[in-house]
Amino acid sequence: MPIVTIFERSPDEGKGLARDMRVRWALEEVGQPYDVRPVSFAAMKEPAHRVLHPFGQIPTYEEGDLTLFETGAIVFHIASRHACLLPEDVNARARAINWMFAALNTIEPTIVEREVVLYLEREESWFKKRLALVEDRIRVKLADLSRRLGDAEWLDVGFSAGDLMTADVLRRLGGSGLLEEFSNLAAFVARAEARPAFTRAFEALRTFFNESDAV
Amino acid sequence: MPIVTIFERSPDEGKGLARDMRVRWALEEVGQPYDVRPVSFAAMKEPAHRVLHPFGQIPTYEEGDLTLFETGAIVFHIASRHACLLPEDVNARARAINWMFAALNTIEPTIVEREVVLYLEREESWFKKRLALVEDRIRVKLADLSRRLGDAEWLDVGFSAGDLMTADVLRRLGGSGLLEEFSNLAAFVARAEARPAFTRAFEALRTFFNESDAV
Repeated sequence: MPIVTIFERSPDEGKGLARDMRVRWALEEVGQPYDVRPVSFAAMKEPAHRVLHPFGQIPTYEEGDLTLFETGAIVFHIASRHACLLPEDVNARARAINWMFAALNTIEPTIVEREVVLYLEREESWFKKRLALVEDRIRVKLADLSRRLGDAEWLDVGFSAGDLMTADVLRRLGGSGLLEEFSNLAAFVARAEARPAFTRAFEALRTFFNESDAV
Repeated sequence: MPIVTIFERSPDEGKGLARDMRVRWALEEVGQPYDVRPVSFAAMKEPAHRVLHPFGQIPTYEEGDLTLFETGAIVFHIASRHACLLPEDVNARARAINWMFAALNTIEPTIVEREVVLYLEREESWFKKRLALVEDRIRVKLADLSRRLGDAEWLDVGFSAGDLMTADVLRRLGGSGLLEEFSNLAAFVARAEARPAFTRAFEALRTFFNESDAV
């Protein structure tokens, strides 16, 4: 059974905004049972964990002899080994993979930068002005994405790993109010979160944090 | 023959730091001829180009009915259809893909953020302090990557699309002096740039900009 490493204590109080959520979700979509192994913030930076994850983060994914540490690669690996998260058609498959990379290389970095401002630059003189600048950069990306999505249900033909990744990246904006400025994107994320596999993954995450009293 | 869109005028004076370089390089590695189509900065933001690239950037990749717009997906598509950029062994292949995602989601965003500071925040009161902060964040990533690479030639077994992507992302640090602080990473990039396919891709890029007098 694959093992996914997760935060020992939830930095977001159990909202499921850490990157293990997308891995749990993909595993639930394909019906693959898994175990989790919590790692403390200190242990993440120790050599034993860095063997699994050279950048000292979570999640990692261990399955037999294979270890992966990037969520894009983990979700792709899961999607490649089961039907249902990547289309059979060669071109549709390439486009779904394109959306996975778009989520991770075009959309997520700006959203992470907002978190950098919020968590690391709050005491700096530039905090307010920088936050506004970064939020405007996010709005540009969201406007582009919103225009492309239009009134479609998903980004291409049917729900894929590309939608899963994009929705999970957009979830990181929760509480910012930015997503709500683009009603079709907010509806897209709500549709994704309404999937039974998402619900199961979220419940598993909540159960862990409640039982470990770590929220 | 596939068509790759590129900048009409080189923003880096022909140093090949734009994202079309990694696509050209991958195409040369597998021996796939291609055409380029230059796009002006204004045209990139027009609806006709946004059909190809919803975020209004370059490169895009058109091949028959298929259009892709993320370099990770383009390089993966090229690597999937030819031998030599992804190992046959299933686990080694998953790890090579893992390095592609690591390059694009873990390493490149911090490097792009440095460019944001340099190009968009130079007149801000915080310019010098922010630049130092971002460069320290880059050093953390480079130190982690350097530790993992050690004295190996490539990141896993033999040169792969993961090395190509990582090396091309690190090339964006050219002139910053940051790469040179990690001698094994500087040597890794030099080894990658010494590959005949890289040289051919770079020559093609230089020839285009010299002929169009656009450097």
